[in-house]
Amino acid sequence: MDIMRVTDELVCTRRAPGFRHTSLRVLENQRGGVFVATDPVGAPVGKWVFTTSGSAARMAMPDKKTITDLTICGIIDQWEEN
Amino acid sequence: MDIMRVTDELVCTRRAPGFRHTSLRVLENQRGGVFVATDPVGAPVGKWVFTTSGSAARMAMPDKKTITDLTICGIIDQWEEN
Amino acid sequence: MDIMRVTDELVCTRRAPGFRHTSLRVLENQRGGVFVATDPVGAPVGKWVFTTSGSAARMAMPDKKTITDLTICGIIDQWEEN
Amino acid sequence: MDIMRVTDELVCTRRAPGFRHTSLRVLENQRGGVFVATDPVGAPVGKWVFTTSGSAARMAMPDKKTITDLTICGIIDQWEEN
Amino acid sequence: MDIMRVTDELVCTRRAPGFRHTSLRVLENQRGGVFVATDPVGAPVGKWVFTTSGSAARMAMPDKKTITDLTICGIIDQWEEN
Repeated sequence: MDIMRVTDELVCTRRAPGFRHTSLRVLENQRGGVFVATDPVGAPVGKWVFTTSGSAARMAMPDKKTITDLTICGIIDQWEEN
Repeated sequence: MDIMRVTDELVCTRRAPGFRHTSLRVLENQRGGVFVATDPVGAPVGKWVFTTSGSAARMAMPDKKTITDLTICGIIDQWEEN
Repeated sequence: MDIMRVTDELVCTRRAPGFRHTSLRVLENQRGGVFVATDPVGAPVGKWVFTTSGSAARMAMPDKKTITDLTICGIIDQWEEN
Repeated sequence: MDIMRVTDELVCTRRAPGFRHTSLRVLENQRGGVFVATDPVGAPVGKWVFTTSGSAARMAMPDKKTITDLTICGIIDQWEEN
Repeated sequence: MDIMRVTDELVCTRRAPGFRHTSLRVLENQRGGVFVATDPVGAPVGKWVFTTSGSAARMAMPDKKTITDLTICGIIDQWEEN
């Protein structure tokens, strides 16, 4: 799993049906890489979270058919950026 | 999922039967990497999109047997390149 | 599989139900990348371990439904950092 | 999917039974990375191709049990190297 | 698949049950990255090999339940390092 920070919400009016109304978050990792993740935890912007990828990302969603490859799994209590 | 921009259409007269007549797009990520994705959304050249990878890329296609590993999931309403 | 060193334990009060009470470790690879892994082996901080990823990470857990994508598989007897 | 150029054929007298007599190609991506792919298309050395990875690489083979993780899916009609 | 060189054997007295007595090898790719792979081929130290990853790595093992994500598939007859 990876450690990233929530930086924004992603707004996509036109998107594939496999996400329905799932909340999408923009994340940034510690090397400045930007990613999009589904968020079943409700992570606020600014928080450090850890994410799971691949088929585990779908298993982490309430609806296992969500077509995600990256899901927020938890909010880290305390994290100091390197 | 990743954030990329559609830069071109990919023309391949000779290709594997697992794609049939699926539209293939050339994408570029924010670090200049170039990729090919299937496109069930109809994303025009120049637009910023987000993509899903791995087995989720197949689940995002109308035909789940498409042999893709990267699929465009949505067109981002507004994105400022870093 | 990858070779990494255990650097810390990850504390997440608020996390997805797919981990239950599984112990989560912070790992660092030899290029300074930081990751989170599930740990069925009981690897102490400071030890070099090897990890498996993807669907194999779930198969390596006692509970195969754990939503992990990285699991510690063994403690390396002796490893000299490059 | 990725865009790569066929640079060579890979000769391996001693190999795992899961490939049988499948043709193996050496590919180079645009950043100089070298990979090995199975080739159901018959791509000649020097051509630019696009490839699929992961479980899709097996689905792209006539024999779905081939133990590949990278398969050539099509020959690109025209490609200018960046 | 990737091209790597066998550099060592990995000794892990304490490891997950999913490997049993499988031989584990330390590999180095052409950019200096270090990995661990299962070896059903019997590749000697110093040889260049090609490897398969992900779920294909398990399919390449005699025991398909081995919790590997990287398996040596063949010994390359001749390889000149770049």
